[in-house]
Amino acid sequence: MSNTATQAISDFIAQVKFNDKGLVTTIAQDAETGEVLMLAWQNAESLRLTLEKGEMVYFSRSRQALWHKGETSGHTQTVHQLAIDCDGDAVLAKVTQRGGIACHTGRKSCFYREFSSVHGMVENAPVLKNPKEIYGAD
Amino acid sequence: MSNTATQAISDFIAQVKFNDKGLVTTIAQDAETGEVLMLAWQNAESLRLTLEKGEMVYFSRSRQALWHKGETSGHTQTVHQLAIDCDGDAVLAKVTQRGGIACHTGRKSCFYREFSSVHGMVENAPVLKNPKEIYGAD
Repeated sequence: MSNTATQAISDFIAQVKFNDKGLVTTIAQDAETGEVLMLAWQNAESLRLTLEKGEMVYFSRSRQALWHKGETSGHTQTVHQLAIDCDGDAVLAKVTQRGGIACHTGRKSCFYREFSSVHGMVENAPVLKNPKEIYGAD
Repeated sequence: MSNTATQAISDFIAQVKFNDKGLVTTIAQDAETGEVLMLAWQNAESLRLTLEKGEMVYFSRSRQALWHKGETSGHTQTVHQLAIDCDGDAVLAKVTQRGGIACHTGRKSCFYREFSSVHGMVENAPVLKNPKEIYGAD
């Protein structure tokens, strides 16, 4: 990676306002269809790795560890564009979702539970692959 | 509002996992184009008001108050669909953005600061209306 690119990554990250836990919310959006795939968190290191690798690296709050999306499932996310919002506390990543599945439930998007004024909530997307097949049997 | 709808709203909100401050992150997405407009926060009351009114009501962390988007600017957001993600700690709202401007800087979307491997950051969207015209002069 060139010095220019390394400096550019540092300059970009310097504009991000991380919260008191050192994290920023990140939206992953399908670069082609515009579908919002998931929302997760990043710290400065995961943002840097994301820009260096060109693949999404999050920070898992439950595991308190870097999380290279797809490291277990193979469902990596190639980054096309990364942007921050006006106050710098949210990131929008436009990605190509490998395998077409972002959600650990085996669905394309994590946002499959939709409000219904009759039923309260309805599921609006199919399971494309059994999670046991994605992550291995119990 | 019918009893069924009121119950449906309660049932939906009961599925949301608010953080230790009683808040959940909410993404507003243009229902037609798929463009991600902004990310903000909601508490249970603002979610309920959103579903009752059919317009986005957020919770302003800086003002610690309910924030009916567009109450000052006129740039309200009509809700078409509201969904939560697999673990219930993020909301995705598909909206029509009145005035075509979601950002307080006068741009359509808040995510106008894009990573550039040469410049670190570049702005990728024009100011559609001077904020002083939107909010009144200083």
